[in-house]
Amino acid sequence: MPNPTAAMLVIGDEILSGRTRDANMAHLAQEFTAAGIDLKEARVVSDDPAAIVAAVNALRDAYDVVVTSGGIGPTHDDITADCIAEAFGVGIDVREDARALMEAHYSKTGRELNEARLRMARIPDGATLIENEVSAAPGFSIGNVHVMAGVPSVFQAMLREVLPTLNGGQPLLSRSKRVEQAEGDIAGPLRVMAGEFTDLSIGSYPFSEGRIYGANVVVRGTDEDRLDAAMARLDEMFG
Amino acid sequence: MPNPTAAMLVIGDEILSGRTRDANMAHLAQEFTAAGIDLKEARVVSDDPAAIVAAVNALRDAYDVVVTSGGIGPTHDDITADCIAEAFGVGIDVREDARALMEAHYSKTGRELNEARLRMARIPDGATLIENEVSAAPGFSIGNVHVMAGVPSVFQAMLREVLPTLNGGQPLLSRSKRVEQAEGDIAGPLRVMAGEFTDLSIGSYPFSEGRIYGANVVVRGTDEDRLDAAMARLDEMFG
Repeated sequence: MPNPTAAMLVIGDEILSGRTRDANMAHLAQEFTAAGIDLKEARVVSDDPAAIVAAVNALRDAYDVVVTSGGIGPTHDDITADCIAEAFGVGIDVREDARALMEAHYSKTGRELNEARLRMARIPDGATLIENEVSAAPGFSIGNVHVMAGVPSVFQAMLREVLPTLNGGQPLLSRSKRVEQAEGDIAGPLRVMAGEFTDLSIGSYPFSEGRIYGANVVVRGTDEDRLDAAMARLDEMFG
Repeated sequence: MPNPTAAMLVIGDEILSGRTRDANMAHLAQEFTAAGIDLKEARVVSDDPAAIVAAVNALRDAYDVVVTSGGIGPTHDDITADCIAEAFGVGIDVREDARALMEAHYSKTGRELNEARLRMARIPDGATLIENEVSAAPGFSIGNVHVMAGVPSVFQAMLREVLPTLNGGQPLLSRSKRVEQAEGDIAGPLRVMAGEFTDLSIGSYPFSEGRIYGANVVVRGTDEDRLDAAMARLDEMFG
């Protein structure tokens, strides 16, 4: 059975204006790779309702699993939950289970559960909460879409909650060999090899360090024996 | 006149497997923001021809400018140029101007312009070359799509060539204020302010440093005086 496919949607003007560098994509990619879930696409869109709704609907139709990050805080620019409700055509309101989570948290910290914070308890109808140990405000899952925070520590905590609920597949394994020959010189032999190992993906990532031109050749696949065979071939070809 | 809109397409399994962290998106975002070109969307797709062709066509229809990065090297996994040709429905072959560029480069370095390297001179019909001072192999522009390398130093060199050819708009300016109050406490006043400064975008990005909870409030817009007014309001509200 092929691995499930996945996409990520990063929501936020701050990434597209260059102010903030997204950190969640690389983390999700690594976790999904280890879990045997194939991350096939990632998109970044701005804080624009039409763009968010369109992207959510395109991705949830095309992939088995969708993860979003960003836009679920207490401020006016946090519009993700409303957009998800619109994408699914369901209502959204403060939900008692979410409010209870937040009340418990704020009563401990002495902060007020004011109107702005209560917005974070607004959950689309039919969603299940993603609790997390870092922040009071929950994420949520609806259909095949998992809605998480943009702050990396909270995103990671939410992913730890969600990952065990997803059906993974065979972990994608990878091996890497550093070759100190220019990419243009190893490309021919690599192409022949790729034709023989069609069950593996073979990537070449060039580097230059001063006067050394080389490439990291990365072999990916799910079968350990085949990876061993590919690495042996690389050693044979490039020493 | 509104600023032109733009999208970026990052091509490469290595980003989606978590092996490599994309560095070009943040660079492009900063350069476009300064040039008054609004980066509205970014996508990352894997080395899959159908996915690349579909993304190129979706983005070039939806935005004024599209920049791609990755997949234009000499190895078998470098399939971007062919996919662009397919997306535009044009032919692709080794082109003499591209071959001449590469011959000049390799005759200097003493490396052989072999079959693999010559693949990098394959250019879709009707495209114009993007020369650059870092690498021999050119990128190219076709229609509103600008095809660049994934290696950051080469991507940046190509962008320096292309940027002056694009019609920019008003640079998006931004100012930032660090507020050491929890985001849930400043969200109410910020929402009121956002309703008054509808010509600006006001974002709030929470942080925690030990026991300090706060947010960086970022105000973006094209009019310096309005930004000054907004910053004065923030000072008034949050000291």
